[in-house]
Amino acid sequence: MTKNGKRILIALGGNAIKQAQEKGTADEQFKNVSITAEHIVRMIQALGNDDRLIITHGNGPQSGNLALQQDIAKEQIPPQPFDIVGAMTQGQIGYMMQNTLENMLTARGIKVPVISVVNQVLVDRNDPEFFGENASKPVGNFLTEEEAMKMKAEKGWIVKKVKPNAPKPWRRTVPSPDPIANVEAEAIKVLVNAGTVVIASGGGGIPVVQEDGRLVGVEAVIDKDLAGERLAEVVNADVFLVLTDIEKAKLNFGKPTESSIDAMTLEEAKRYLSEGHFLAGSMGPKVKACIRFIEWGGKEAIITSLDKAMDAIDGKTGTHITKG
Amino acid sequence: MTKNGKRILIALGGNAIKQAQEKGTADEQFKNVSITAEHIVRMIQALGNDDRLIITHGNGPQSGNLALQQDIAKEQIPPQPFDIVGAMTQGQIGYMMQNTLENMLTARGIKVPVISVVNQVLVDRNDPEFFGENASKPVGNFLTEEEAMKMKAEKGWIVKKVKPNAPKPWRRTVPSPDPIANVEAEAIKVLVNAGTVVIASGGGGIPVVQEDGRLVGVEAVIDKDLAGERLAEVVNADVFLVLTDIEKAKLNFGKPTESSIDAMTLEEAKRYLSEGHFLAGSMGPKVKACIRFIEWGGKEAIITSLDKAMDAIDGKTGTHITKG
Repeated sequence: MTKNGKRILIALGGNAIKQAQEKGTADEQFKNVSITAEHIVRMIQALGNDDRLIITHGNGPQSGNLALQQDIAKEQIPPQPFDIVGAMTQGQIGYMMQNTLENMLTARGIKVPVISVVNQVLVDRNDPEFFGENASKPVGNFLTEEEAMKMKAEKGWIVKKVKPNAPKPWRRTVPSPDPIANVEAEAIKVLVNAGTVVIASGGGGIPVVQEDGRLVGVEAVIDKDLAGERLAEVVNADVFLVLTDIEKAKLNFGKPTESSIDAMTLEEAKRYLSEGHFLAGSMGPKVKACIRFIEWGGKEAIITSLDKAMDAIDGKTGTHITKG
Repeated sequence: MTKNGKRILIALGGNAIKQAQEKGTADEQFKNVSITAEHIVRMIQALGNDDRLIITHGNGPQSGNLALQQDIAKEQIPPQPFDIVGAMTQGQIGYMMQNTLENMLTARGIKVPVISVVNQVLVDRNDPEFFGENASKPVGNFLTEEEAMKMKAEKGWIVKKVKPNAPKPWRRTVPSPDPIANVEAEAIKVLVNAGTVVIASGGGGIPVVQEDGRLVGVEAVIDKDLAGERLAEVVNADVFLVLTDIEKAKLNFGKPTESSIDAMTLEEAKRYLSEGHFLAGSMGPKVKACIRFIEWGGKEAIITSLDKAMDAIDGKTGTHITKG
């Protein structure tokens, strides 16, 4: 993909849209998105004319709420499978983000189009996550043992006891397969090349598998940072910026010897990951996505918090991963 | 907007995605979308290299189901307002359509990218539909008088008795304001110019109004044909193809003197509309959208059914509206 200028792929964490303690009203979510958008607009202002920003985001709280609504109403309205739930949250979050970004850019007199696209991500039907009890991503509401066993028997759900001492300790878990490729790569490239701020691969993308030459949606949830890395490849990003709730990744996380990481070479990042410094389902996939980005040929991956993003791009903070 | 070749804007009716008697499972909807997509793919095959197809669609059944799910689950999860419900159905329907179209194009060896975009449509805060009891679009489930009066008192809903003799005769009605402009016009033009089949303005678009220089979502539902006409202007369409469940529009609809219309000039269409030949909320807005398209400068507007679309483009059937 030919380009001039620098391209930055931003992967936004769940707290960019819904705070954990919130119920998820539209007002709450628009307020959070505004805070996020303020930072993004500052980044856009700091960019040159040939630079490009591409955005992806999680959808955990939104898909959880939607799946729960569908489950509660299931006697009246057929619930939609997880691929469609994912697609619906792409519309929901995409709208909130693009509306807010457009408004802020307009207020500053910046004429940059913003658009969210509906976006599928290819995964492998033979991914280990699809087999036996391997599915690793807890979704939806917490269940009693009775409820969990009922859903297991009736619908073949994989259920896991995720909070052993809680009154409702069980939860459905769905496969979280590894993303292979972004399906709508061509259209996304067209938009980015034309100068549009694109919001894509939302919630890790809508998971699809190859089946007799067709792409078919599956009941799964793809990690949004790993899917974001595939998007970074598509748009030929220079910088892969993974935003989370802490300023820097940690060694010996949660132990007395805990320390912040300012920089890691590719080899260091791989070693730390294999040594178990990063939590699975949390910092683990973020570091893995950064490793993959550098191995693909990206210049720099950064892990930091939203409010430090500008400083991190300037090299003042965050955890920086480079080839070394 | 510069262009070579012919551009056709297709506005798909509700039956393109969900049949009235169906509950709306994912399987049912994918099956309907497949039938629709077969016709669209045949149109794409018949087009020249420089020709472009742009698609819009309704979302009545999907937004109705989603609003009902949200209402049933409202004690646990905050329902989202209508702008967000609309955005969610853009993701849902956009995914089903783009996945199905991509699969069919791939199977035929046709390399045309397809993408659905999240899309806002500007309406006027002073539109008469926002005032008093003018709101004209029934949405969501049917209500008893008691339920209707409760929602009116508690939430300020406008409720109307739409089925006088039914056990639940009442329904919420929301404003259906006139679409003024497609907000994401620039990004859509970029995609169409690059040869992408774009699905946009789904469900009539996400309704937004200007408020202190910002675009703010409103609780409304825009007619998808009128919004589709605004999209046709954006992409500089030559043909505006409005698909519905009948092959031709009728004069004296439902009367012994009923007759099919093969062709109307702009003046005839206006006269028939003012004479009340076309039902409000049904054929009325379709004819109105066609009139607007020809007045804007479009070459030809066609009203027909999905299975006759190819023949209608070839001039063999359908109701054709031209400047005359």
